[in-house]
Amino acid sequence: MPIQIKTLGRSDLLRLPPGEDLLVGLYRICREQGVSLGVFSATGSVRNATLGHLDQECGDACRQILDTDHELVHCGGNISLQADSLSIRAHAVVSDRQGQVSAGELLAAEVHVVELFVQEVKGAPLTRELDPETGLWLWPVA
Amino acid sequence: MPIQIKTLGRSDLLRLPPGEDLLVGLYRICREQGVSLGVFSATGSVRNATLGHLDQECGDACRQILDTDHELVHCGGNISLQADSLSIRAHAVVSDRQGQVSAGELLAAEVHVVELFVQEVKGAPLTRELDPETGLWLWPVA
Amino acid sequence: MPIQIKTLGRSDLLRLPPGEDLLVGLYRICREQGVSLGVFSATGSVRNATLGHLDQECGDACRQILDTDHELVHCGGNISLQADSLSIRAHAVVSDRQGQVSAGELLAAEVHVVELFVQEVKGAPLTRELDPETGLWLWPVA
Repeated sequence: MPIQIKTLGRSDLLRLPPGEDLLVGLYRICREQGVSLGVFSATGSVRNATLGHLDQECGDACRQILDTDHELVHCGGNISLQADSLSIRAHAVVSDRQGQVSAGELLAAEVHVVELFVQEVKGAPLTRELDPETGLWLWPVA
Repeated sequence: MPIQIKTLGRSDLLRLPPGEDLLVGLYRICREQGVSLGVFSATGSVRNATLGHLDQECGDACRQILDTDHELVHCGGNISLQADSLSIRAHAVVSDRQGQVSAGELLAAEVHVVELFVQEVKGAPLTRELDPETGLWLWPVA
Repeated sequence: MPIQIKTLGRSDLLRLPPGEDLLVGLYRICREQGVSLGVFSATGSVRNATLGHLDQECGDACRQILDTDHELVHCGGNISLQADSLSIRAHAVVSDRQGQVSAGELLAAEVHVVELFVQEVKGAPLTRELDPETGLWLWPVA
């Protein structure tokens, strides 16, 4: 596949409201700003995070539910499309007050304080399609 | 709050001097280059890192002092203002030679080898103000 | 050393082919696109990752071999030159299905699903040279 040239669009640095779910907030910000392709990163402090770990055999995610407060040491990922809808994939590293570190795909997390950087990428849209081999929604391979 | 359009300014890739504190070096680079809004990431190898874990109840940070050498697997965060001064918030994931992983807000770390990417963001300044509810210095909510 | 102004070049968001080594894929993409200076980040799911932890005393890396499937929670680093060749340095945080987190310099990892963001930086080239003190190939200090 020939690689199409992409450039950077708008940038935003902002704080999500306390109590909002981090992913819900990310989808909201992307919709409000019309971002359908890009990358993001976030740090801060969250509650009740749910992490996922992909089982490569069956394509399902094992869920890890963290019911205490956690430092959001790093959250990052990308923004693209799945069918006509926005699709955000996020991964996160968190730690608790005893220094215990957890990490995985971020499936949910309630915002205590979350500072977010969203970087729009401009160019041909990237769309996730159902991959019959893995059962996952994936971009075409480059 | 209406979101104001931000764009990217100057970019830098550089190495911090051995022995300097990572945060002191970051503040120095931002001052030398006149960066008051932006994001950064760093990787490398550090000594004597101190990590913080926010206690969401009281707003204080529990400190975790690591007195051996650590791989700086990821350090990232943002640059903004607090009153008229530069304010840098950094989080980091580190690991030791036995593979033990620690992560939290980065409060201090002596540079052995640190490679740094600083990306300036241009637009209306972002200023931290004391939030009476949490006791933290925070940006306005978007 | 006076800091030379750098700006951003081309951006790419893409998926690496399953079965390819992550670093081999990164080198291939950078060569195909003519990127010799930049930063990248990646997330996804990998197999048989090898992590390294620098021994600051002797300059060698202790290797940690992970022979099961892992979530690629974060992989990031930079692209520059070493002599006339491309030189990519990557660090990664991974987790397994039991939630065990590992992190270090990424030395190898077989791609299951890896989504990659590559951001070219334009400006004077950065070249790694052998540092007699540490035995490492390093950029000049800023």
